[in-house]
Amino acid sequence: MEAISIGLLGLGTVGSGVVKIIENHQDKIMHQVGCPVQVKKILVKNVKKEREVEITDDILLTVDANDILDDPEIDVVIEVMGGIEETRNILLKALKNKKQVVTANKDLMAVHGAELLQAASQNNCDLFYEASVAGGIPILRGLVDGLASDRIIKLMGIVNGTTNFILTKMSQQQRPYEDVLLEAQALGFAESDPTSDVEGLDAARKMTILATLGFSMNIGLEDVKVQGITNVTDDDIQYGKQLGYTMKLIGIAQRQEEKVEVSVQPTFIVDSHPLAAVNNEYNAVYVYGEAVGETMFYGPGAGSLPTATAVVSDLVNVLKNMRLGVNGKGAIAPQFKKKLKEPDEMFSKYFLRLQVVDEVGVFAEITSIFSQHGVSFEKILQLPVKEKGLAEIVLVTHHASLLNYENILLELRDLSSVRTVKSSYRVEGGTK
Amino acid sequence: MEAISIGLLGLGTVGSGVVKIIENHQDKIMHQVGCPVQVKKILVKNVKKEREVEITDDILLTVDANDILDDPEIDVVIEVMGGIEETRNILLKALKNKKQVVTANKDLMAVHGAELLQAASQNNCDLFYEASVAGGIPILRGLVDGLASDRIIKLMGIVNGTTNFILTKMSQQQRPYEDVLLEAQALGFAESDPTSDVEGLDAARKMTILATLGFSMNIGLEDVKVQGITNVTDDDIQYGKQLGYTMKLIGIAQRQEEKVEVSVQPTFIVDSHPLAAVNNEYNAVYVYGEAVGETMFYGPGAGSLPTATAVVSDLVNVLKNMRLGVNGKGAIAPQFKKKLKEPDEMFSKYFLRLQVVDEVGVFAEITSIFSQHGVSFEKILQLPVKEKGLAEIVLVTHHASLLNYENILLELRDLSSVRTVKSSYRVEGGTK
Repeated sequence: MEAISIGLLGLGTVGSGVVKIIENHQDKIMHQVGCPVQVKKILVKNVKKEREVEITDDILLTVDANDILDDPEIDVVIEVMGGIEETRNILLKALKNKKQVVTANKDLMAVHGAELLQAASQNNCDLFYEASVAGGIPILRGLVDGLASDRIIKLMGIVNGTTNFILTKMSQQQRPYEDVLLEAQALGFAESDPTSDVEGLDAARKMTILATLGFSMNIGLEDVKVQGITNVTDDDIQYGKQLGYTMKLIGIAQRQEEKVEVSVQPTFIVDSHPLAAVNNEYNAVYVYGEAVGETMFYGPGAGSLPTATAVVSDLVNVLKNMRLGVNGKGAIAPQFKKKLKEPDEMFSKYFLRLQVVDEVGVFAEITSIFSQHGVSFEKILQLPVKEKGLAEIVLVTHHASLLNYENILLELRDLSSVRTVKSSYRVEGGTK
Repeated sequence: MEAISIGLLGLGTVGSGVVKIIENHQDKIMHQVGCPVQVKKILVKNVKKEREVEITDDILLTVDANDILDDPEIDVVIEVMGGIEETRNILLKALKNKKQVVTANKDLMAVHGAELLQAASQNNCDLFYEASVAGGIPILRGLVDGLASDRIIKLMGIVNGTTNFILTKMSQQQRPYEDVLLEAQALGFAESDPTSDVEGLDAARKMTILATLGFSMNIGLEDVKVQGITNVTDDDIQYGKQLGYTMKLIGIAQRQEEKVEVSVQPTFIVDSHPLAAVNNEYNAVYVYGEAVGETMFYGPGAGSLPTATAVVSDLVNVLKNMRLGVNGKGAIAPQFKKKLKEPDEMFSKYFLRLQVVDEVGVFAEITSIFSQHGVSFEKILQLPVKEKGLAEIVLVTHHASLLNYENILLELRDLSSVRTVKSSYRVEGGTK
């Protein structure tokens, strides 16, 4: 039977993994799709560079994407080169030329996903991107298929391995952020410029993709409220521990009625919640569905082999569709028009740590501001501080609207008895 | 557009849930499959019985399965009636009459799965059974699709909610088995005859289905070594805690080279393993793939709504395939011939608790038996006992073959210094 030919865009660690898996699992793939599969051409930056994977003579390395895009024998294009604008143009041309597309590119899908999916559908081509979110976890397929008949109310994701590694070490070893960041960089878990990870942007891109699928609504990166972990202190983490919370960078997408909110922020999660046990570089996506209740998908969020595995799983699905002649029929346009919640519609619990003047009446002064805004407390903790004449108070509120909470913060900052607002975090996991 | 007609076999809590979901999610289903869906006929035992779900006048209740199987207008049969032999015959006839089939019946699939899947394939019909294992977790699809290009080395499942509830309470509240079982029965988490759950049979059926899919090999119920939780004591659990282990009823399916082993048994799992944090009635399936590494799927294992949700998700996939005209093409016959490991090829760590005579030389006598069989220790714990002249020893071995370990147990029982072998469990989770 004739082999199906693949064009590979990019030959970094993920690309090399894809080449290896296709070679090593030729039997298994053939068993599933009924014909052999071969990588025919690979786009690289430098043809002469030493590779960690052996490239046999029947594979052409090229620096010109058009060698692949214009080759009528190539049926499927796999994109693992990264980048946004140039890559968008390449994939649009691939789809126009009726190539099936598999991509692992979250940045691209977060920004141009809607446009690319539409182009795929118009050209009767598949565009699969399972590897773009939490490489090792088949979460996108889970959202589309497994929960097809449910209504997803809430998604919470630990979708960035670097920040989860850093927060885990800070928590378990009581070490400061800067110190652990250096270790993470030394171990290769953080890049030399860690901005995209530690400022929450990488997680925000993934939440954009998850929310778009989960709510069947075109959520854009600009709709996601983002806060990174650079201001999280080991003190905060230890205070949280005393109250039964674990600090995680959590992406949250939730809806009430027809309105949604999506955010990424350092969050205290109740210790008994399954996300609290997700440690080190691991990722997990927690899904609360109206009917099914709580589910969670756990696995490696990145790494070249898990990501390459997800890419090849997508490839197998593309190939099955090719054999059945049904490519491009799987994509479903978003069902709902985007409606975002306003700050008075976003409810959460909050953890607030204040340094206050240790005088009679101060506590009453502070709490009265909360009650004026109709916000009550779930937990209160007062602790001694080293500096004389000061006290430290940790408050955990019941559910409050973001609008109310921000107004409370403004008023607290104006109080002469409040020396510093040390930190403030969202709290999740207690009640739905 | 013409509606697709469903015949429902069974109207218990899951069947009622299916009726409700199809009604409530009509819009979402229609958006996905492009045409309306209606339940046309329902097989019940008693037509006049009061129902928890409203059955509109356009739905026919019948006590005769043939009313459904012989109705040419019915395209899809959903089986949620349970039972094995009679149900097998009904579904074989449904497939022969070219009905697509969705079933939630693990007992049936564990025993007759291979035959039914073959019949489905011969008749170009889908036979989907996602709801049969861990209702709320899309694990079967995860195994088939998500890990399509990986090689699964090991599956570990907490796949029975009743026993997980019991073990969680025994562990957290230091209560004995019988006491917690009564509570579980009162809460509806255990049946009045709990045998199938507590003796591990229910879990064994699910592991049969998981192993068959995961290893692409026809594993039968008779291939699964089963041990229940009725002999687990709260003492054992507390000793395990001291060593950093949590007690769970774990189904394990693993392979080395081309040989596999499948078992269900009470197991001490290392506290840092993600399965150790799966509590109460929740289920989880942990998958170790050669390329992807560790992943885990977590969710409700049963319950009428989660199970009904999984059934309707399968239904949506059947309907999509109908629209594409590709039913019956998804099933893949097992790729490999079944090869089971022998006891000298099954390796594990073991926890062993002995009551011994408290005399000089006894410890040396015991440990020399282990070393004669080439088995060494990872952990040793000696504890005082109330009874005078006795000591209690807990040993955790390094990896040992089952054959060696059983021989050691035989020899230990023969020693006059060993008063009782109090308990022995498999230990998992440390190294792969």
